[in-house]
Amino acid sequence: MNRREFSQGLTLLALSPALPSIAQPPLPPRVNATRLRKRLEDLSVFGRPAGGTFADGVSRVGFSDADIQGRTWLQSEIHSIGLEPKIDAAGNISALRPGTIPGKKPILFGSHIDSVRGGGNFDGDVGSMSSIEVMATLMEKGVKTRHPLEYVVWAAEESNYGSGLHGSRMAAGLIESDEFDRVQGGVSKREAIKRIGGDASRIAEARRAPGSFHAYLELHIEQGGKLDRARIPIGVVEGIVTIDDYDVHVRGFANHAGTTPMAERRDALVAASQIVLAVNSIAKGESGAQVGTVGQMSIKPNAPNVVPGDVELTVEFRDLDGAKVARLGVAFKERCAEIATATNTDIDVVFTSRHEGARATPTIQAAIEKAAAGLELKAMRLPSGAGHDAQAIATLGPMGMIFVPSVDGISHSPRELSRWNEIAQGADVLMSTILELDTRDSLG
Amino acid sequence: MNRREFSQGLTLLALSPALPSIAQPPLPPRVNATRLRKRLEDLSVFGRPAGGTFADGVSRVGFSDADIQGRTWLQSEIHSIGLEPKIDAAGNISALRPGTIPGKKPILFGSHIDSVRGGGNFDGDVGSMSSIEVMATLMEKGVKTRHPLEYVVWAAEESNYGSGLHGSRMAAGLIESDEFDRVQGGVSKREAIKRIGGDASRIAEARRAPGSFHAYLELHIEQGGKLDRARIPIGVVEGIVTIDDYDVHVRGFANHAGTTPMAERRDALVAASQIVLAVNSIAKGESGAQVGTVGQMSIKPNAPNVVPGDVELTVEFRDLDGAKVARLGVAFKERCAEIATATNTDIDVVFTSRHEGARATPTIQAAIEKAAAGLELKAMRLPSGAGHDAQAIATLGPMGMIFVPSVDGISHSPRELSRWNEIAQGADVLMSTILELDTRDSLG
Repeated sequence: MNRREFSQGLTLLALSPALPSIAQPPLPPRVNATRLRKRLEDLSVFGRPAGGTFADGVSRVGFSDADIQGRTWLQSEIHSIGLEPKIDAAGNISALRPGTIPGKKPILFGSHIDSVRGGGNFDGDVGSMSSIEVMATLMEKGVKTRHPLEYVVWAAEESNYGSGLHGSRMAAGLIESDEFDRVQGGVSKREAIKRIGGDASRIAEARRAPGSFHAYLELHIEQGGKLDRARIPIGVVEGIVTIDDYDVHVRGFANHAGTTPMAERRDALVAASQIVLAVNSIAKGESGAQVGTVGQMSIKPNAPNVVPGDVELTVEFRDLDGAKVARLGVAFKERCAEIATATNTDIDVVFTSRHEGARATPTIQAAIEKAAAGLELKAMRLPSGAGHDAQAIATLGPMGMIFVPSVDGISHSPRELSRWNEIAQGADVLMSTILELDTRDSLG
Repeated sequence: MNRREFSQGLTLLALSPALPSIAQPPLPPRVNATRLRKRLEDLSVFGRPAGGTFADGVSRVGFSDADIQGRTWLQSEIHSIGLEPKIDAAGNISALRPGTIPGKKPILFGSHIDSVRGGGNFDGDVGSMSSIEVMATLMEKGVKTRHPLEYVVWAAEESNYGSGLHGSRMAAGLIESDEFDRVQGGVSKREAIKRIGGDASRIAEARRAPGSFHAYLELHIEQGGKLDRARIPIGVVEGIVTIDDYDVHVRGFANHAGTTPMAERRDALVAASQIVLAVNSIAKGESGAQVGTVGQMSIKPNAPNVVPGDVELTVEFRDLDGAKVARLGVAFKERCAEIATATNTDIDVVFTSRHEGARATPTIQAAIEKAAAGLELKAMRLPSGAGHDAQAIATLGPMGMIFVPSVDGISHSPRELSRWNEIAQGADVLMSTILELDTRDSLG
């Protein structure tokens, strides 16, 4: 302890009340951490690799048999806490607990239970199992709320049939053209929706009206390493980043690697390598949390003794600030033009899609911080670099998200891990936030 | 014309004999260019894409049905010029024409007729069809040689079953371990050799003794663009380059592209891109004809929204000077170590193989130049950047190669093209070279 810390310690001591029990607010309710963990473990068996354990992760791809088994189990869990599960036309599962004041809009909260192929047992599951645990705790303790509470598990959040956030997008009316006619493994999305109890022909019924809920809250693992590195258990999400995607096609000329002099080459892989490094340096070129990634690349003819003639690659930029994301894309396209000239190749850059992010509602961010403080948990604000159902639902009304730490920032991997006590702390914060928001008539 | 050229012209005029017909040597014999072209066109149908024309190239992969059909046709062509085809245990096809002096070693000449998948109608075919045309012309014109002449078409020159130069390597006794047990498309190499009339169990019989031939000559398309750009019809090959191959494995860490800050990434593709550019700049870093190529790369998990965690790539360096090839490899490995540190990745560089090149015998290079001069054809010396059967045969005795131009330097492609008149000129040079070498008792 240095002198400064010592004197601060003295100040705090001097400010402490002599009889702490009198001045303190009542303790917030807490979830049953053991039951929460058990539900996460029970859910993990659906899609578990054959012969594996919890640590081997899960492949519970949306619309798959494993997903359907998990959804059936979930409905029985909802029954077991005394609520009635409903399935809408998109396949979203929800359960409503009435409030004490008639006409109040529900507080909506939940997440998803589908996973990527070769994923972990925390992404989506943590929020979904914590939310049912919050519902169970409030009912068990007889805690009434003025607003109805609605538990929701969105169908097929992970990228599937070419795009993710299926159930939440349907709820927000964000349907892509020809979406239901897409085919995967011989099954159209229309048929896949039927398999999970939905009905594409009545998809409009899954739509929720703008302003139809008081707030939407989602607890989720961070999927990055910021909380874990800072040793802070609660993340208050500022918003979900905007993502711009580009497809890049580099055309050089394939020729014999032995007989084509260096100066005569039109090597598409040399050009593509310069593009990869340009994306990296553009993303690192200014302060901020923006990222730029080349994640996918295919090379033709891809033979050791042939100068590559053709390379296709994907580029994406992400940031909370959509204008910055667009600006990075402009800089990137300028660099591609320079690289094309320098390498004597043709480079086509096609902007393929923008995934609009969403800012979390400031009053909800403040409510989450207040809830964490009430539980004596440290919290920090941070953006979500990953997409979430919350960004679709944010188009309809107030939204907030709570993150719990991902150990070493690993996600979409069997090595994905969040600590049981931190998951329970996240669920506690979710419950306190719900109770805090329940006291408000408007989140303006 | 400037003053200097003008005065040279005067000098030449002054030296010219008054009656040119008396002092000139007899005209060298010339091949039948029409018949040579017809054989190239006839051969092109075996392995031609369905419904295609000559211009659509050929897929006559060694040991394939198309290869077997082409070989059957070739044997009937050998019969048609009055010689007897033989097939050795490796599947090489040869035909011997006796010489006038008993005990002389044969002059061996030929090439191959198999192609890469999606190749052209000139690589291998030009040398093989020119060689049978040379044999036919000499027989037709009654030109006797002191040495026996042996026409040879080596089996499966292109890379197949993991390595190329099958027939010529077998002739040179350069058998790789487990070579015959390799399986491709459900067929072992042992069975494949049987399909083309060979016998792996008697492979030693295909071996030719060192010193068993007077010279080996091979006419081939250049496969590069040097002759075509210089508008020179004859290339005198100085030698075949040595090739060093490396496999590189970059291990970073795959993570979510949205949630992993730039500074925390261990992006294997960023490291691999730096390697691609390092290979390029090392090859360009000194004067000479050396080349360096990254032709093949595979990325994992190869998804747009995941930071690549694992990249494997191939690297090769080529030059006529084997010591220089090794030196480039040392510089490359040093750069990889620096890149690993800079990108926080692990980079393994494995030296996988050296393909020893071969210098062409100086007296044969001089004989080719003399033959070209006798036919009033311009010639230039150049290395072969591609591998050829000649490099295996060079381990047994004197070797020389003649190149004809590849239009735009394109090869291993349906767009591969050599001009009919330049092919015939190449065949003429081959014939004159054979006759020139036939006058020598030793090639030193």
